[in-house]
Amino acid sequence: MKQIETDKNIIKEFNSLFYPKSIAIVGASNNKIGGSKFWLALQYTGFEEIGGKTYLINPKISELFGQKVYPSLLDENIPKPIDLVIIAVPANLVPKIVMQCNKIVKFGVIFTSGFGEADNKSLENELKNAINSVSTRFIGPNGLGIINPYSRIAIYPDWGVFKGNLSYISQSGGTLARLYLNLGPLGIGFHNCVSIGNSYDISINELLEYFYHDKLTKIIALYLESNPNGRKFMHLAQKITPNKPIVLWKGGQSKRGISATHSHTGGLAGSYNVWKAMCKQSGILLADHFELFLDLIQVASTRPVTPKNLNIAILVAGGGIGVEFTDKFESAGFNIVDLQTETIDKLSKIFPPVNTNLKNPLDLGELSYDPRLFSKAMEIVLEDEGVGSVVFVREAERFSMLSKMLGINDAQKMTIDSLSEIISKSDKPVICNSSMNVDNEEGYHQRHEFQMKMIEAGIPVVNYIGNIPKILMQFYYYGRFLKNRKKSEKK
Amino acid sequence: MKQIETDKNIIKEFNSLFYPKSIAIVGASNNKIGGSKFWLALQYTGFEEIGGKTYLINPKISELFGQKVYPSLLDENIPKPIDLVIIAVPANLVPKIVMQCNKIVKFGVIFTSGFGEADNKSLENELKNAINSVSTRFIGPNGLGIINPYSRIAIYPDWGVFKGNLSYISQSGGTLARLYLNLGPLGIGFHNCVSIGNSYDISINELLEYFYHDKLTKIIALYLESNPNGRKFMHLAQKITPNKPIVLWKGGQSKRGISATHSHTGGLAGSYNVWKAMCKQSGILLADHFELFLDLIQVASTRPVTPKNLNIAILVAGGGIGVEFTDKFESAGFNIVDLQTETIDKLSKIFPPVNTNLKNPLDLGELSYDPRLFSKAMEIVLEDEGVGSVVFVREAERFSMLSKMLGINDAQKMTIDSLSEIISKSDKPVICNSSMNVDNEEGYHQRHEFQMKMIEAGIPVVNYIGNIPKILMQFYYYGRFLKNRKKSEKK
Repeated sequence: MKQIETDKNIIKEFNSLFYPKSIAIVGASNNKIGGSKFWLALQYTGFEEIGGKTYLINPKISELFGQKVYPSLLDENIPKPIDLVIIAVPANLVPKIVMQCNKIVKFGVIFTSGFGEADNKSLENELKNAINSVSTRFIGPNGLGIINPYSRIAIYPDWGVFKGNLSYISQSGGTLARLYLNLGPLGIGFHNCVSIGNSYDISINELLEYFYHDKLTKIIALYLESNPNGRKFMHLAQKITPNKPIVLWKGGQSKRGISATHSHTGGLAGSYNVWKAMCKQSGILLADHFELFLDLIQVASTRPVTPKNLNIAILVAGGGIGVEFTDKFESAGFNIVDLQTETIDKLSKIFPPVNTNLKNPLDLGELSYDPRLFSKAMEIVLEDEGVGSVVFVREAERFSMLSKMLGINDAQKMTIDSLSEIISKSDKPVICNSSMNVDNEEGYHQRHEFQMKMIEAGIPVVNYIGNIPKILMQFYYYGRFLKNRKKSEKK
Repeated sequence: MKQIETDKNIIKEFNSLFYPKSIAIVGASNNKIGGSKFWLALQYTGFEEIGGKTYLINPKISELFGQKVYPSLLDENIPKPIDLVIIAVPANLVPKIVMQCNKIVKFGVIFTSGFGEADNKSLENELKNAINSVSTRFIGPNGLGIINPYSRIAIYPDWGVFKGNLSYISQSGGTLARLYLNLGPLGIGFHNCVSIGNSYDISINELLEYFYHDKLTKIIALYLESNPNGRKFMHLAQKITPNKPIVLWKGGQSKRGISATHSHTGGLAGSYNVWKAMCKQSGILLADHFELFLDLIQVASTRPVTPKNLNIAILVAGGGIGVEFTDKFESAGFNIVDLQTETIDKLSKIFPPVNTNLKNPLDLGELSYDPRLFSKAMEIVLEDEGVGSVVFVREAERFSMLSKMLGINDAQKMTIDSLSEIISKSDKPVICNSSMNVDNEEGYHQRHEFQMKMIEAGIPVVNYIGNIPKILMQFYYYGRFLKNRKKSEKK
């Protein structure tokens, strides 16, 4: 194994992988969904504009997209060493290209699939032997590659360049695409995204070590189906989570799901219960499906605050939605806490008894659409010592109507600004729900804009009510882990 | 009680409620969120354009929106009888207005709240006595009112007029709004929507009887928190569901949730387990949250087909999403069935072994983006006798790219047309998933258009993967109910 010996060197060692100055693409052709798409992607992000060099390799053609195509990596006209090579040739040719990389290429991404995950054992062994016999380090095979908006490495043209502080490792290329294109447009940007595939060489644990030391990474997300070294993974996670939240979605939770992961990445998945226990013991936030994964990442990026207890306060306007929240939270093990008499007294001075209900779940009635009154209510509820977390509803689609009704210039801005001021002073988790009220383009636009601006203001917006108790429960476990860890450090 | 004596007369009796020729609004004022909004809504839908007459009532003003305002319902210039009166005056004035309705008004909608649900027992009794002493029948109090796109009755201006075959009764006004504005723009239209509030007079069961006989109603949706006469409700449901699917969302499932329903509608909710058992025994499709409620209604409107067994086949392109489906279905009690050898043989003639997996969950690889090949695969899988239901993924955001890649004029149209032809020949449930891949306006537009066109073509699209097994399980129970019913009819 070629693992890096000391973790201190890892930033320096992996620099050419994540910040390459030269990239060669082996297998670029007229087929735009093959190797060429990487070149098109680099054009889109402007890799060459910031000084990067690209080289197209294909012995069968001499020109592509108006660029010279070299017959081989070994061609003397390509300056050596090459920082990064992307390999997108048929599976049986991959071992040969890997051998060519020795001493002239620092890192490789093997895009090609058709090895262990396709039950092709002999080709898998041949490739592993080739990898082990050369100096070059490899990501893949059977992975989409790397995205780094800072160094402009990209996978697909048109995906957008979203800079931020999330680093992501995925054992599924499809999941990487969905994650990038869902979070990026919301304002949750990335440092590094790695579609790691079968990871025959560079391991998840090595990348985690890198992200631990990397200053731009402030939160780590993982989609994993299997992990070859569980004990090391857990120790690493325990080291990382007190500083940077880790959000994990584990694919392969059921018996048949686990067997399906084998055809996907060729790894061994292990029991989901073991993973669940491991996450609790290492402070990892665990998601069991994609949308929850996105929501957990959003909350961890926006307001990574852990609740002291499972007492929840619910602030809505309207009876039906209060019942819906109560059902979801109670069945998830939360306590819809009785508010202190003082809290109710303070609220009742603002909200008259008609068409309101000042018992938790709080139905604050139509008056609460006034941003000033609603923020005041939020302040009062957050001050209640019995309350562990607060969830509330603001309907994005209503703001333009509210601005008119209340004679305010911008009801949305006033709502976000005043809530943000109140909430930023509190150390309690607060999550906003803004479900789809109107399924049309104007409604989408209003919801998306509201969510973006709320995230910018440090308030997470989770649109699927059923996910909110799951998120708060994960943060509750995370808080317990951090507390236990502090205790054991004191001993 | 003033319940209608025989169910045969119910269509005729309720005609003036749902197809009124004259509507009076008591409490219309300059406050546009009070009674006036009903008048504005009727202008928007064109109630007067189809010959309807409206009368504004308020003793304090003589003109509003350029219209004459009458001091009282009793004013001799208003022709009698009035078909429908909307009452939006302060709670303490409601009993008096109700008394005025006697013999001159056929139906009333009491919009005002502040009775049993606000613990105002004496006003509740006063109102109930007034209602019982007059000839007029009432919806409410504490309900938003009625929407009927055919007769142009409406609640809010700008909500849109969506004609169709869904009739809806809701014990929550907010839920009615969300439902109408989510389903309408997707092409699932309505006959009647009733926000029934505390239902002191006209009952849910009476409305159900009406919808049973009503020819325009082909599917019934209910949001209920309580029902005063459970036994009658169950008998009615057993009569209706063999002809028209009923979809129910029960608010108040947890202990605290049930107590929250009291402040909302003032009713008694009863144990959720009792409701669950009742639904299974009467063929009602049961949802436990809003999004599932929408999805169940969509499937019941689009392809109300019950599965013969819990064997599921999953058709996707990509490994990660196949694992996600498998996890969700297996944990929900479904069997990811082994396909017959013949099925796999047929598929393997179309899809080569590289980058595909022809075991269930089927990963058909990139070739399956070709609409012709994908429909062929669908046909082969539907023919497999072991398969009870099929779920599949089509990514709405990909079609424009696919059209270019495949040199097809319109890959979306070709996909929908060819799938629709295959699926319409089968009697098995088929559900498409088209999750959000890109969270931006173009992505929203593509997803929404795709879903609309699929619904039009008779193929439901459910975007939240976790809801799909829940939907199919409800249809499985529905199928068992229908089968048992047929058996008992034969005896």
